[in-house]
Amino acid sequence: MKTSDPPARAKARRVRADAPAHAPVALPSQEGRVIIEAVEPEIDGGRAAAKCAEGTRFTISADIFTDGHEVIAADILWQRAGAPQWLRAPMHFVDNDRWSGHFTPPVIGRYHYSIEAWRDPFASWRRDVQKRLGARQDVTLELQEGLALVEAAGADGHDPDALDEMRTRLARASLDACLAILIGTDLAALMARHGPRHAVTHRTPVLELAVDRRAAVFGAWYELFPRSQAGDPQRHGTFDDLIARLPYIRDLGFDVLYLPPIHPIGRTNRKGPNNERRAGPDDPGSVYAIGAQEGGHTAVHPQLGTLEDFRRLVGAAQAQQIEIALDFAIQCSNDHPWIKDHPEWFDWRPDGTIKHAENPPKTYEDIVNLHFDGAAFPDVWFALRDVVLFWIETGVRIFRVDNPHTKPIPFWRWLIREINAQHADVIFLAEAFTRPKMMQKLAKIGFQQSYTYFTWRNAKSEILEYVHELTGPMATYYRPHFFVNTPDINSYYLQTSGRPGFIVRATLAATLSSLWGMYSGFEICEAQALPGREEYRDSEKYQLRHFDMDRPGHIKDHIRALNYIRRTNPALQDYRECLALNSTNEHILVYARMTQGRDNCVLVIVNLDPFNRQASEYEVPLWEFGLPDWAVIEAEDLLHGNRFTLHGKTHVIDLDPARGPVAIWRLLPPASAGL
Amino acid sequence: MKTSDPPARAKARRVRADAPAHAPVALPSQEGRVIIEAVEPEIDGGRAAAKCAEGTRFTISADIFTDGHEVIAADILWQRAGAPQWLRAPMHFVDNDRWSGHFTPPVIGRYHYSIEAWRDPFASWRRDVQKRLGARQDVTLELQEGLALVEAAGADGHDPDALDEMRTRLARASLDACLAILIGTDLAALMARHGPRHAVTHRTPVLELAVDRRAAVFGAWYELFPRSQAGDPQRHGTFDDLIARLPYIRDLGFDVLYLPPIHPIGRTNRKGPNNERRAGPDDPGSVYAIGAQEGGHTAVHPQLGTLEDFRRLVGAAQAQQIEIALDFAIQCSNDHPWIKDHPEWFDWRPDGTIKHAENPPKTYEDIVNLHFDGAAFPDVWFALRDVVLFWIETGVRIFRVDNPHTKPIPFWRWLIREINAQHADVIFLAEAFTRPKMMQKLAKIGFQQSYTYFTWRNAKSEILEYVHELTGPMATYYRPHFFVNTPDINSYYLQTSGRPGFIVRATLAATLSSLWGMYSGFEICEAQALPGREEYRDSEKYQLRHFDMDRPGHIKDHIRALNYIRRTNPALQDYRECLALNSTNEHILVYARMTQGRDNCVLVIVNLDPFNRQASEYEVPLWEFGLPDWAVIEAEDLLHGNRFTLHGKTHVIDLDPARGPVAIWRLLPPASAGL
Repeated sequence: MKTSDPPARAKARRVRADAPAHAPVALPSQEGRVIIEAVEPEIDGGRAAAKCAEGTRFTISADIFTDGHEVIAADILWQRAGAPQWLRAPMHFVDNDRWSGHFTPPVIGRYHYSIEAWRDPFASWRRDVQKRLGARQDVTLELQEGLALVEAAGADGHDPDALDEMRTRLARASLDACLAILIGTDLAALMARHGPRHAVTHRTPVLELAVDRRAAVFGAWYELFPRSQAGDPQRHGTFDDLIARLPYIRDLGFDVLYLPPIHPIGRTNRKGPNNERRAGPDDPGSVYAIGAQEGGHTAVHPQLGTLEDFRRLVGAAQAQQIEIALDFAIQCSNDHPWIKDHPEWFDWRPDGTIKHAENPPKTYEDIVNLHFDGAAFPDVWFALRDVVLFWIETGVRIFRVDNPHTKPIPFWRWLIREINAQHADVIFLAEAFTRPKMMQKLAKIGFQQSYTYFTWRNAKSEILEYVHELTGPMATYYRPHFFVNTPDINSYYLQTSGRPGFIVRATLAATLSSLWGMYSGFEICEAQALPGREEYRDSEKYQLRHFDMDRPGHIKDHIRALNYIRRTNPALQDYRECLALNSTNEHILVYARMTQGRDNCVLVIVNLDPFNRQASEYEVPLWEFGLPDWAVIEAEDLLHGNRFTLHGKTHVIDLDPARGPVAIWRLLPPASAGL
Repeated sequence: MKTSDPPARAKARRVRADAPAHAPVALPSQEGRVIIEAVEPEIDGGRAAAKCAEGTRFTISADIFTDGHEVIAADILWQRAGAPQWLRAPMHFVDNDRWSGHFTPPVIGRYHYSIEAWRDPFASWRRDVQKRLGARQDVTLELQEGLALVEAAGADGHDPDALDEMRTRLARASLDACLAILIGTDLAALMARHGPRHAVTHRTPVLELAVDRRAAVFGAWYELFPRSQAGDPQRHGTFDDLIARLPYIRDLGFDVLYLPPIHPIGRTNRKGPNNERRAGPDDPGSVYAIGAQEGGHTAVHPQLGTLEDFRRLVGAAQAQQIEIALDFAIQCSNDHPWIKDHPEWFDWRPDGTIKHAENPPKTYEDIVNLHFDGAAFPDVWFALRDVVLFWIETGVRIFRVDNPHTKPIPFWRWLIREINAQHADVIFLAEAFTRPKMMQKLAKIGFQQSYTYFTWRNAKSEILEYVHELTGPMATYYRPHFFVNTPDINSYYLQTSGRPGFIVRATLAATLSSLWGMYSGFEICEAQALPGREEYRDSEKYQLRHFDMDRPGHIKDHIRALNYIRRTNPALQDYRECLALNSTNEHILVYARMTQGRDNCVLVIVNLDPFNRQASEYEVPLWEFGLPDWAVIEAEDLLHGNRFTLHGKTHVIDLDPARGPVAIWRLLPPASAGL
């Protein structure tokens, strides 16, 4: 069997003197003889980076095939960006020309990955000879051809030492022994590494992978307004008040404490309580009207304390293993210092007044928007980047970005890259409640986490459909954060559900995604609303409030339990594996969350009806552990601590919202289960 | 309102002297502010060209959006490859950030297409002012801002003449009249063309479109062995015998006459009847063992006639509007002249013998394969290209390619490009019955038509699923040819179904795809098989045969009718629109084929059970014509010529295989139907 020419020789031949009569319009080229297609993940043809957490497995699959019957093989090539060489991970055949492989990025940062595939003449020879031997055919000539392939193995520049020993053995062997060596597994392994490879093909373009720290994938967030933490609605809270609240937050099991803007608030056109157009003299204004005489985006509201106080807060939180997340809201109040210092960053009207933020016919008189192009470009980009760097310097590593979809996509792409190049551990959460494709785009261009439509998915079919969407191809770039409420979203479901509904929604959020969050007040089932709207009444966005966190009917025990269950069950620390299970009642939602290796499995059963007792048949996913439908499996009730045994696949559950609308069990398959 | 900088100015600003403290890792860039994503068709990220027929509409859609609330607009850009400038076709908003547009390529050849999108400040201004007027707000300042935008329209270098007149009108108008002009549709249209466009974005890479002649999309093929056309199995048929058969083929309504290889046949290791390993002295051998002393791929089998005779055949066929399609089968017999002339194009074994084609443990002793790389590259590529050019010179423009999946993909990509660059009207049909991804790949790299799994899709669900697959995204590059039988495929269904089954399969093929074909003998329901195999007994591949085409039970009338119906109903001249209709019986398949404009609609009802009468409820697709469920629609029975009226959506049909297993109706909605 002849072997392919190495590329250099093939190239030389293309310009032979005895050119054909018809000059070709394109030069013949052997490129692409092994086909590598439909690579996953490959987001928008490689325009966006996939995402992964450090120390977790990153799986790549592709269609790989070639003409004829030749045996092929493939490796993943991967490297940290800028590393001097590529590392390899083997791919294996799955089915229907699909191949798969994986690697585990060890540290955070940007990575590249690609696929290399080739035709393997020795493996092809070996397979064919084995078929002929099986059909009792003479293989004398095949033996000689095999020897020639082993001989040729040195020629490709691979390490010849191990091969030389094998060649010596072959040279001394009898004909039968020679054949046995040639088709043996030792030589097969050696030739797989060092044997000739034909039509070596690389997938282009090389793809990007962003590897983030674990907190980008797994975390429980708590949101509060620092100015409301004085314990008295007449007194403006301080960072020191907040430091005193940290043990409470830690006790509930939260990892991240997220603060809405902490900057000076504008006075011109300040909003009053409930977003009234005019504020009274003592009204504190909206925290989102950023900037006053005292400073702008890098200043601290004087009534909260000093920058030094803030640093102390960050330190105190760290000491309790709580990370502080800040709000990055780009709009300015009418009194922001930038307006005087950089008038070219803003829109001015023909009468010389500044143009307010608007969504006609609505105008937001207390804020103005920055320009991102025109005379503001690129200075404003650098200024905003420096705001982020300023807070990074105080120890903050997580930023929740307000309304990113109303600022240019190229700005965010640049900003996140720029920040992560210096601080790879910084995480940005996109607060974009807008059309799906824009939300997806923000994740594609770099946001490590994204808000979701979770608050508006209440029915069983809605929830299942949404989780199915989030755990599909989107999951390679979109990390869904399930907030149960926010200062902007007091959902109709919560307004009407009473306490059981809060337990339902917290359970769903905490067990359907590895990222969940709540805004202070949720734990005491606070849901007083402006009539007919999903806005809180007397919202903390516009005024100081105080809530009694021990008032009867609170669900702090349940929230504490949820966060404990999440920390002790790896299945809940990723958002990608969710198995919907059959249940016969449309109010009863049943799903299993599992690790890839099935060594941890949490079964969740939720009665979505907050008013009525509901019963349903449901299925325990015995098949996921290789167990038959009649198998016996142990279960541990993670809310109440008891253990019990489930016999067979189909069972009945009955959940009374008054006594407990949810069940969370860990399934414990027998050690002998066929995993 | 300020407007964006033109790119040049923005670029200059990036290198300002007062650079920020932190040097950026990437330069800020405004690129990609308008997002163009998920373009369809865009095959494999633009690696493959989409396909379209000349004079038919080519539709492009994409997700197009931008940040904030700015109004956007988009055009398709398209051109024939090498044309000096781009043409434009407008895109319109569909739903959920999806936009769509189309153009009609006028002539065959290669085209390029892309999308341009931009932010439209005047349209945004106009929308906002209309909202403020609706809310009875003062718009004095907005009016001035609008005037400034009209003033700025000249600055972009667009034709200012029409605008100047409008400016003069505005300058003379009262305030109210001025506002009326500013928000009027005249100015809106003018500004849409000449007004400033911000963040103009082009989708890259530019995509390719291959525009073929109509025969690539629509055609009925008839296949026969010329050597069997003597009317006597003892005598070798000639091209003159075949010329005498042309009226028969034309009478049945076929457009293309496809001939298996017509070349000299090797003598060494010649195969006997039914693929026996040794041929008798008078056995003609397999037509696929190409090449003998008399010549190879550019020679004609002496017993068929001369090259001049072949030219006469091509001419005679053309005179009857039949195109001759030739087989392009690359393997050689042991006696092919290339073996002596170019030994380096073949594989040689250690004992000096030539390596036969094989699929171990099977060896095909009558043929040898060409090498495509090594010492054969690129000479063999040029030689094969020249074979195709040789037959093109005789007037042939269609090639059915034998087993392309066992030759390198890069070879086919190059060959088809090379041939089509000189002869854009040449069509290649890929005869690859292999794994789906390889079949799709061959279509992606250029084959204008492809064989399909049609012969093995017999049950209702199988057929519907397969048609659904073929009419999905695959349809943009894969043109499915539905052959009912071939010399290699005598399907089990046909072997067992009797005459009704032949009518069923011909009807399905002829009405489900615009490309269908049959191999001679099908019209007389010939299905004698080798036991337990899908091979014909005494196959013409290995021996001369004669069939009585008038023998009782033939279905020539039905085939003639099918081809007539196809020629007179545009809905059957494309393969992309197939609407499966509800029917309650699993043996009754009902579907509608429709033109995009719904001006032609053919309803097909097939009883897939060739033995039993079957009845079923089914639905007439009134909704496709905007008609209510109780509407009345006229129908014309295209097989029997009668007309009748269908009242309402749901009906019952009863088909007896003995009397006629299929119904083909043209639906004639009232002229007033809401199309």
